[in-house]
Amino acid sequence: MGRSTTRRPVVRIDLNGPAGSSSRRPDELAAEEPLEIRVRKQPLAVTMRTPGHDIDLAMGFLLSEGLIAEAGDVSTAQLCAGTDTPNTYNVVDIVLGDHVPPVVTDLSRNFYTTSSCGVCGKASIDAVRTRSRFDVAGDPLRVPATTLAELPGRLRAAQRTFDRTGGLHAAGLFTAAGELLVLREDVGRHNAVDKVLGWALREGRLPLAGQVLMVSGRASFELVQKAWMAGLPMLAAVSAPSTLAADLAEEAGLTLVGFLRGATMNVYTGVDRVTV
Amino acid sequence: MGRSTTRRPVVRIDLNGPAGSSSRRPDELAAEEPLEIRVRKQPLAVTMRTPGHDIDLAMGFLLSEGLIAEAGDVSTAQLCAGTDTPNTYNVVDIVLGDHVPPVVTDLSRNFYTTSSCGVCGKASIDAVRTRSRFDVAGDPLRVPATTLAELPGRLRAAQRTFDRTGGLHAAGLFTAAGELLVLREDVGRHNAVDKVLGWALREGRLPLAGQVLMVSGRASFELVQKAWMAGLPMLAAVSAPSTLAADLAEEAGLTLVGFLRGATMNVYTGVDRVTV
Repeated sequence: MGRSTTRRPVVRIDLNGPAGSSSRRPDELAAEEPLEIRVRKQPLAVTMRTPGHDIDLAMGFLLSEGLIAEAGDVSTAQLCAGTDTPNTYNVVDIVLGDHVPPVVTDLSRNFYTTSSCGVCGKASIDAVRTRSRFDVAGDPLRVPATTLAELPGRLRAAQRTFDRTGGLHAAGLFTAAGELLVLREDVGRHNAVDKVLGWALREGRLPLAGQVLMVSGRASFELVQKAWMAGLPMLAAVSAPSTLAADLAEEAGLTLVGFLRGATMNVYTGVDRVTV
Repeated sequence: MGRSTTRRPVVRIDLNGPAGSSSRRPDELAAEEPLEIRVRKQPLAVTMRTPGHDIDLAMGFLLSEGLIAEAGDVSTAQLCAGTDTPNTYNVVDIVLGDHVPPVVTDLSRNFYTTSSCGVCGKASIDAVRTRSRFDVAGDPLRVPATTLAELPGRLRAAQRTFDRTGGLHAAGLFTAAGELLVLREDVGRHNAVDKVLGWALREGRLPLAGQVLMVSGRASFELVQKAWMAGLPMLAAVSAPSTLAADLAEEAGLTLVGFLRGATMNVYTGVDRVTV
């Protein structure tokens, strides 16, 4: 439990090396294990994640799904004491306060599906809008493009400390001045973001007004959803956004920056918050 | 429906360009829409995917989950005729043959969870082993490292035709001689693989003995699971595998190649199939 990497032997082949170049060496792999999230003893979801910050992951997930909005909504959260030897600790059990409405058990279906034959992007966007408790459209955040240009390097520098595997996604929360507040890593991009959001919720920092979330990969619908649910006015990604991510960001009034690499970036929505 | 990209305006900022360099231009984004997979009219799963090859995606998903093993297990598969205008076609309805056992409706929970407090990697591996109908450990496939080294370039070359967005994952099925049989793209890595597997199932090509699946990103547990369920003896990835991906590949007797870039690669399991 808690090990974010594991070492195992690998055969390294280099066709440009000395004749027949093939060597056995140890390699560090990113750990991946299932985590079951239970609410009031009922299993709610299973995600494949990198162990560590598991309670934050569970809290960030519940925040993203609109089940909780602040630390006070959670009575207790604990890693389940398993019966295995060694204990795998792959269950987080969360007890919500009595004031929190009962959980709808089938989140994915409820979240995206409308009646008849109509799952569609618009229905997905409507579902997030209904659930979000924070207004990000009016957030007065302004970030110079020169500050944004420094974020990928800061994320990578902080990540380098932890990641020797090349296999982990990173999510970092930054101030408007470009200061890194927290970094989390995971084999799953959405899990890395959930860990950041769970930390913020536990620290009483929600909504994350005036701040920027930066992710190492692409920006999907799900990541924009998470940013909106946490009250973040800006999401920046190293790679491309999808259509539905841009549509949801526009609906939310959230600034979506993609292909943020060195001195160049694309601003898909909310360009007023990026000053040149 | 079926549009894999959408054009939208973007503000491009280049801090190294002429003073205050910021220009508005059109950009192509990878399409992302929800797809609901129904079996015998019952909703089974919702995935965010890039429209196109949706029936293959659904069939590949059912194959990966062990619900079907060959084309004959499917009676009919159709895109649901929705009531929306324009029709969003975001539902695939699959009717299985009468000989196919009833579907367990909560796949994720059933798949990973054991009794008491024990979800863990080992239980996940055991679940896949129980479900897989194909033995890949005895597959006599041999691939020269020089052939493997050419696969990423061939995948990218084929992908370039379709992908102008920078936002799509690719999965390609190759012969032992390095010939590309089929390529599929999606915002979700697992969806790209499901589309390849669904194509193979529909074409009566299962098990995919003696062939190689190559993916553009990382190799997770889920991708190794899909490869095993399709009878593939080798999975190659441009980026890193996770611990559980390597553990599952070892259990299956499947060759797992990672960091396949130009002349170098790491072989994590089943190194006998790679000849230098």
